[in-house]
This record gives sequence, structure tokens and C-alpha cells, in this order.
Amino acid sequence: MTNSFFSKLEEKWSGEKFLCVGLDPDLTKIPKLIQTKNITETIVSFNKAIIDATADLVCAFKPNSAFYEAYGVEGVEALKQTIAYIHKNYPDVPVALDAKRGDIGNTNNGYATYAFDYLQADAMTVQPYLGKDAVQPLLDREDKGIIILVKTSNKGSGDFQDMLVGDEKKSLYKIVAESIVKDWNTNGNCAIVVGATYPEELKAVRKIVGDMPILIPGIGAQGGNVADAVQAGKNKKGTGMIIATSRAILYASNGEDFVAAARKEAEKLHNEIKNNL
Amino acid sequence: MTNSFFSKLEEKWSGEKFLCVGLDPDLTKIPKLIQTKNITETIVSFNKAIIDATADLVCAFKPNSAFYEAYGVEGVEALKQTIAYIHKNYPDVPVALDAKRGDIGNTNNGYATYAFDYLQADAMTVQPYLGKDAVQPLLDREDKGIIILVKTSNKGSGDFQDMLVGDEKKSLYKIVAESIVKDWNTNGNCAIVVGATYPEELKAVRKIVGDMPILIPGIGAQGGNVADAVQAGKNKKGTGMIIATSRAILYASNGEDFVAAARKEAEKLHNEIKNNL
Repeated sequence: MTNSFFSKLEEKWSGEKFLCVGLDPDLTKIPKLIQTKNITETIVSFNKAIIDATADLVCAFKPNSAFYEAYGVEGVEALKQTIAYIHKNYPDVPVALDAKRGDIGNTNNGYATYAFDYLQADAMTVQPYLGKDAVQPLLDREDKGIIILVKTSNKGSGDFQDMLVGDEKKSLYKIVAESIVKDWNTNGNCAIVVGATYPEELKAVRKIVGDMPILIPGIGAQGGNVADAVQAGKNKKGTGMIIATSRAILYASNGEDFVAAARKEAEKLHNEIKNNL
Repeated sequence: MTNSFFSKLEEKWSGEKFLCVGLDPDLTKIPKLIQTKNITETIVSFNKAIIDATADLVCAFKPNSAFYEAYGVEGVEALKQTIAYIHKNYPDVPVALDAKRGDIGNTNNGYATYAFDYLQADAMTVQPYLGKDAVQPLLDREDKGIIILVKTSNKGSGDFQDMLVGDEKKSLYKIVAESIVKDWNTNGNCAIVVGATYPEELKAVRKIVGDMPILIPGIGAQGGNVADAVQAGKNKKGTGMIIATSRAILYASNGEDFVAAARKEAEKLHNEIKNNL
């Protein structure tokens, strides 16, 4: 079975595209000039403008479910329409739903249905804390990408992720990465998340996971450095990276030039990544 | 500020009510006789019937978001209407949204808005893996309950949760419980999750967290034993437990007697809990 996420990614990587634009709509930041009273309409038209302005530069789009759920059914409807728009107009660009879901097995079927069947996402981000049997219904979706959190980009991600485990005193995030490689990836549909804010850890994880795709958030607003992320994150083929940023592109301007400003920022990051390959 | 979750719980506990009914609608199991072509309507009428049949026996209702999201906007609308129905008709019964969310700080605001402002839940379940700073926007909601996963009920929950950490070789789930008590609970609004399927671990965690409320899933279909759960889970006051079950009550019958069957099963569990206090 073809994996829509991996096959589209490979194609994009072969064209040296590694940027991933996070589609995280926030009505307090979306330019007033495109806002209407209809929340769904406002979010979708903002997203369409950003998608049209950046689709030729990216390897993936990554809407974060939280920003849509905050607007209830109107937000979820906007999320569905946004993904449908990408599939229709840019069928070569995969969509990774950033939802960081994680429940026990039976219940994860609900999240699989939400992300993959209802929203038609090509991939979803997932929590590791509950263990493999919990994630199995997602891992069973061999047509989709399952992107598991390993070392997250936030300042306090070390609280548990950096804890030293077992006799070997190995960091928990490394143990999680090793488990994914050894036990979770039997369908070859796993990817992982490591923040650009931790280039040393990113380098260590790349060694553990081989060529596996790594979603790398944290450049831009969160302070991660592009050159470091690329050097630490690329695999032996010089690919394997999904370098994600949201606010820096989406809200590059809040005036009528927001599309041009987003394009300019996306081009800048795309070039910065390419120049550091 | 009053915490709607904790204050309602205390009231229910004082009446010796510890049962929590999980509202997890599944159209393949909901009795055909109440199904219409309208998904929202079907789910809400099923939930109302279950709520009316059990509200006087429970300390909380716990809808799991996954079962609603699987039906997209129609499901989310049903979830909103279900919670509104409980607040209107049983204002003394708190609603814990089982959503197991967890993102980085900024993004968790979206989930707080979804759960607490849009859906009007009194509490939400939360993932610990990203660390305290990630969860902070949720912990800041001192009017709501933040229920953090510690030791989950699934078979494979030990994959990471049981790993021995640091020089003391303490299980990760205990470290998470200790962190919540020491560092996360500054607003006194934390609760935790420990599965009834692990009575020994539940006993150990109760020692760590003192009187903190523990949501205890896993009795019924998952095989947890009520007597063991109560003995291990109660605090020094003989309270502190939210003992959750879903399928055993919701789908006790799929015929026209489903309301009576659900009531009977809820009474049985309520009495079993009381008799073991």
C-alpha cells in the first residue's frame, strides 16, 4: 500500500524542499482586512492565501488542531476545508495534522478516523507516553504517517524527556526513539518530532533513527537556528527533514501586504535551508 | 476562585458517590431504535438517556473527545450539546473531558479554549510528556481541573511509564506523580489518572499524592477489579476517587431496555464501590 505521506515527502525532498508551513490561525493576528463575521470563512480564506503563496516552496503543510478546535465546530469545519483545498489544488503536498493525540488502543481508533478519514490528513503527530499497544491502531494505518513526539521544542521538554533511564543511564527521549525504530515501525510509516531548539539532541536522535523522517519545529519564534537544525537533522541522503515554522510566516505582516510578506519569509527560510544542506 | 470540578466532586463524595460514567458514543453500538439519520441528534439522545438514568449515582460524567471527533463537526456539536445538557439538568455533576491533550505552551491555550470555554467542561485530561512549562497555560486555569496521566490502564502502559529513572531507580510514573505534587499543583487544581488495572501502582501513587483526586479508569471491559481499586485508590478521608467505566454501562443492552440495563449496571457498580469503602 502506498503511504501518501512518505511518497509525497520523498518527491518534495528530491526537489530540495524541506520547509513545512504550520497553518495555525489566530483571529487576533489574522489581518483585519480579510476578516468577516463568519469564522470558518475567515480562517479558510486566510489559509488559502498563505497556501497559495508558499505551496511551491514547502515539503508539507502542518495545521495544528488546537488552533481550530479553539473555535469549535466552525474551526473544525475550517480545518476540513483547508485540508481539502490543499489536496485539490496541491495534491503533491502532504498534510501533517499536528494533533499530538494519544489514548488507549480502542479509543485511538476515534482519533484515526478524525485525522485520516474525516479530515483526510496524510499524517498525524502522536504522544508516546502510553506505550506501543496504545498507539497500535494508528501504527496499523500503513497508508498514513505516524509522527511520534521524541524531544519537543519547548524549554521545559527535559522535565521527563531528558531523565536518565536504566542501568545505561540513557535519556528517555533516546529510549523512545530506539523503541520506535526497533518495535513501532513495522509498517515503515513512523516519523518523529525533535525540536530545532535542541541541535545536540537532534544529532543524537538522527544517529538512532537512520533515514527516518524528522519533523523539526522550533525555528523562528521559538529561537531554533536553521543552519544547526539542517546540519544535525539531515540523514545520509541529505534529506529526511520537515522543518516547520508557523508564526514567522503567517504573521510576517498584519497589513494588506501579508501574502507578499509571508512569501518573502518562506523564500528566505527555504533558501537558508538549501544553502546549509 | 472556586474550582467547579473540585467543589462539585467534594459534594458528590460526601454522598458516597465515586462512580464516573464515560460517555463514549459509538454508532455501531448505540441501539438502532434511537438512531436517526442525524448523527448529532442520535448521539445526544443516547447520551441524554444514559445521563438521566445514572446522574443520581455518579460523581462525574466523562465524555471522551475521540468518540465525538470521529464524527467530525456533527460529533463535536453533539459533545457541546451533551455537556450543556448536563450543566442545565444536573448542575451539581461535574464534567471531565477526556481529551488527553498536550502541546507546547502557546498552543495549549487553544485546547484550554476548546475544553473550558467552548465546551464548558469542568476538567480535562492532559499528557505529561512535554513537561511543566508546556502544561502551564492549563495549570493556570485555577477554575478548572487538570487531570494528568500518570499510570494508564492499558496493557503496554509500562513501556515507558515503568522505566526506572535516575540513581534512585524510581519508576517514571512515580516521578511524574511526584512532580505534579511538588511543582505543578500550585493552584491546587491538579488531579491524576491511574488505571484500576494496576492496583499495586495505584496504592503507591496514592501514597505520593496524598488526598489528590485520582481518576481511575479500567474497571469493567478492561478487567480492573472494583474492590482492589477502592482499597488502593481511596485517600485518608475515604474519598478522592473517580472510578470510571464506559462500555459496561453504555452498552449493557442494545435493545429497547438499554436505559434500564444501564441503570442496573450503574447501580451494581455504585453499590460495589460503596460496599468496599
